[in-house]
Amino acid sequence: MVVSLSRRGDVEPFHAMDILAEANRLKAQGVPVISMAVGQPSDPAPTRVLEVAANALKNGRIGYTDALGLASLRKAIADHYADHYGLEIAPGRIAVTTGSSAAFNLAFLAMFDPGDRVAIAAPGYPAYRNIMTALGIEVVEIELGGDAYLHAGHIEAAHAEKPLKGVLFASPANPTGAVVPAEELKLIVETAEKLGIGVISDEIYHRLAYDAPDATALAYGSGVTVINSFSKYYCMTGWRVGWMVLPEPLVRQVERIAQSLYISAPELSQIAATEAFHATQELEAVKARYAWNRELLMKRLPELGFPLAAPMDGAFYAFCDVTRHTNDSMAFARKMLAKAHVAATPGRDFDPLAGHRTMRFSYAGSHDEMVEAMARIERWLK
Amino acid sequence: MVVSLSRRGDVEPFHAMDILAEANRLKAQGVPVISMAVGQPSDPAPTRVLEVAANALKNGRIGYTDALGLASLRKAIADHYADHYGLEIAPGRIAVTTGSSAAFNLAFLAMFDPGDRVAIAAPGYPAYRNIMTALGIEVVEIELGGDAYLHAGHIEAAHAEKPLKGVLFASPANPTGAVVPAEELKLIVETAEKLGIGVISDEIYHRLAYDAPDATALAYGSGVTVINSFSKYYCMTGWRVGWMVLPEPLVRQVERIAQSLYISAPELSQIAATEAFHATQELEAVKARYAWNRELLMKRLPELGFPLAAPMDGAFYAFCDVTRHTNDSMAFARKMLAKAHVAATPGRDFDPLAGHRTMRFSYAGSHDEMVEAMARIERWLK
Repeated sequence: MVVSLSRRGDVEPFHAMDILAEANRLKAQGVPVISMAVGQPSDPAPTRVLEVAANALKNGRIGYTDALGLASLRKAIADHYADHYGLEIAPGRIAVTTGSSAAFNLAFLAMFDPGDRVAIAAPGYPAYRNIMTALGIEVVEIELGGDAYLHAGHIEAAHAEKPLKGVLFASPANPTGAVVPAEELKLIVETAEKLGIGVISDEIYHRLAYDAPDATALAYGSGVTVINSFSKYYCMTGWRVGWMVLPEPLVRQVERIAQSLYISAPELSQIAATEAFHATQELEAVKARYAWNRELLMKRLPELGFPLAAPMDGAFYAFCDVTRHTNDSMAFARKMLAKAHVAATPGRDFDPLAGHRTMRFSYAGSHDEMVEAMARIERWLK
Repeated sequence: MVVSLSRRGDVEPFHAMDILAEANRLKAQGVPVISMAVGQPSDPAPTRVLEVAANALKNGRIGYTDALGLASLRKAIADHYADHYGLEIAPGRIAVTTGSSAAFNLAFLAMFDPGDRVAIAAPGYPAYRNIMTALGIEVVEIELGGDAYLHAGHIEAAHAEKPLKGVLFASPANPTGAVVPAEELKLIVETAEKLGIGVISDEIYHRLAYDAPDATALAYGSGVTVINSFSKYYCMTGWRVGWMVLPEPLVRQVERIAQSLYISAPELSQIAATEAFHATQELEAVKARYAWNRELLMKRLPELGFPLAAPMDGAFYAFCDVTRHTNDSMAFARKMLAKAHVAATPGRDFDPLAGHRTMRFSYAGSHDEMVEAMARIERWLK
C-alpha cells in the first residue's frame, strides 16, 4: 500500500474532541455520560432561529451563497456592532464563515506566511496552535504563569526577543474565563500597532461575561481582525456559522481564499443566524443558568479538591488545578470518564507545558447535570 | 493602520464565485439573471432529506458531532459502497467533511508538505490549484491538450521530469465532463502506486455519467484517498456535507487535523444526508432532466458558435471553445452577464494557460432556463 503521509499533519489531537468521541461511544452503549468536556450549550438554538430555519427548508433550495456570506446576514452582523458596541462597521467588512474554525484558518492564511512568528497565550484554545502548526506558522506561546491574561508587556517582551508578525488573544478567554479589562485591551492593540504586529481578537465569548460589559478590540485599532461566532452565546454550535470583521485591505484577500477553501458557509445556518440577534430575552435566560451553574462550581470544585486556577469572569469554563489528585490530567480525565461518567478536558489541550496540572470543566449544561456531575465526582473520589 | 497581509494568501480568485457574487448583486436589483456559472442543481434536496432535517430541527439541539462525523452517516456511506460499487469499506475509513472543500484541504494537509509536487490535469477544478498554492504545495499542471483525460502516461512523464509526491484527478471531470474508462483508471492507480505516488480520486460527479457505469479508484488500490460529496447528484450544495474514504494509515492523521480545523461538519446536514441514499427515484428524475438539458446544449451551443471542447460524458457541464467570439473569455463572460443576463464561467478558472479560449456552461438548471439562456445568448450575439 502506498500512502502519502505529511509531516505537518502530525499535529496534536484536540483532546476535548477525543474525549467527546469516547463519550459518544459510551453513550451509544447506554452509559449516562455527563459531558463537561466540550464548550457547547445544552440548549437548542433560539425559537425564532429554529422557525426561520424550518421555513427556509420548506421554501426551496439550500444553495451556495456568496463566499463572504448572505448580504442580509452581513448587514445583521454590522447592525449588531452598532447596537451592542455603538460602533459603525460597514457590512462589506464582514465575512461570514463556517464557524470560528474557518475564520481562524482564513485569518492565518490571509495574514501570515510560513515561518512567521505569532504569539498566543498559554493556556489558550488548542486549535490556534494546531492550525498554525499545520500552516507552518511559528507559534510563540506566552506562558501566563500568575497573570490572568495576556497584556501589552508580554507582547513587547516576546517581540524584543525576536520580531512577531502577529498576536492572537481572546477575552473572555478559553479555558480560563478571564476577561481583559477595556483599558488593558486598548493598550494591547495600541502596543501591537505601534510595533507593526497584526492583531487578531477572538471575541467568541462576548455576551458571556458576568461582571464587565464587552469591549471589542475594533474600538482601539483600525487594522484589527475580529473573530466571533454564533456557537456560544447564540447556542448554535452544530450549525457551523461564525464571522470575521476585517480591515478593508484584508477583505478581498479573505474572499479569494474562502472561495476555494470553503465556497460558502452553510446557507440554512446563515439564514437562521440572521434571527439570532433578535432572541436576546431567550438567550439571557440561558446565560442566567450559566451564572447559576458558575456559582455552584465555584463552591463545589474547590471543595472536591479542584481549586480554581483562573477567575471565571466569563465564558462557561472552570479551569482548575488538579494536582491534589494527579500529576497527569490526561490519564485522570480518561479515568474520570470511565469510572464517574463525567467528561472534562485535560489541560494539555490548552497548555503543552503546564497542562498536566490542570483541567477544564464546561458548565454550559443544565443545572441538574452540574449537580449530578459534582456528586458523581465526589462519590468516585471517595 | 497596521494590516498583516500574507504572500501565500495571494491566490487566484475562484472566478465562478466572483461571477456568482456579481449575478447575486444583479438579481438583488431585479435583473432576471440565469446562472450557468456555478455547478449547482436548481432542485432542492430530496423530499425525505428535507423531512428528516425538519424533524431534527424540532427534536433538539444541533451540536458538534465527532470530528469524523456521525456514526450513522459513516455507516450509511459505507453501505453505499457495498450497494453501488460492490465494495466492502469499513465505516471507520469514512470521514464526513464540510463539503468536498474540506475534504480537499484535509487530504492536502494530511498527505503533502510544502514543496511537494502534486500533479493535476489542466483544465481542472480551480480549488485544487488554489488550495494547494495556499498550502505551499507545488502544483504540476498537466496540460491535456488533445487528450480527453489524464492517463498513466502523463503521470509517468511528469514523474520522470521531477518526482511527484501525489496525483489528483476527477472522473467525471470538471469542467470537461470527461469520464475515465475503468481500465484506464486502473492503470493510473497501479502506475502511481508502482511509482510511490499518493493518489486522490475526486469522485464528486459519480452517478452523473450518461453512458458508462461508475468506476471508483478504490477498486484498484488500497492506498487511494477518495473524495465525494452530497452536493452534486444529491442536490445538497448549500448543506456543506461531503466525505472521504481513507486508507487506514491516514484516518487518525485526518481526524486530528479535522478536530482543530473544522471541529465537525454541520450536524443537521449530516442527519439529513443519511437519508440521501434512499432518494434514488427522485434523484434519477433530476438526472434525466440534466440529460435532456445536455441534448439541448450539445446542439445549441455549437450552433451559436461555441463548439464543444470536451465530450460531455458526465457531470453537468458543457466546456466550449469560445475563440469564434473572443480571445478573452473572462471579459466575454462579464459582458455576457451584463448584457444577456446569462452567467457562465470563464475558462481561466480551470486552466491558467489556455483558459482564455474556453468557457464552462453548467446545465444543472431547469430545462426552461436552458432554453431561455440559449435564446438570450443568440439575441445578444446578433
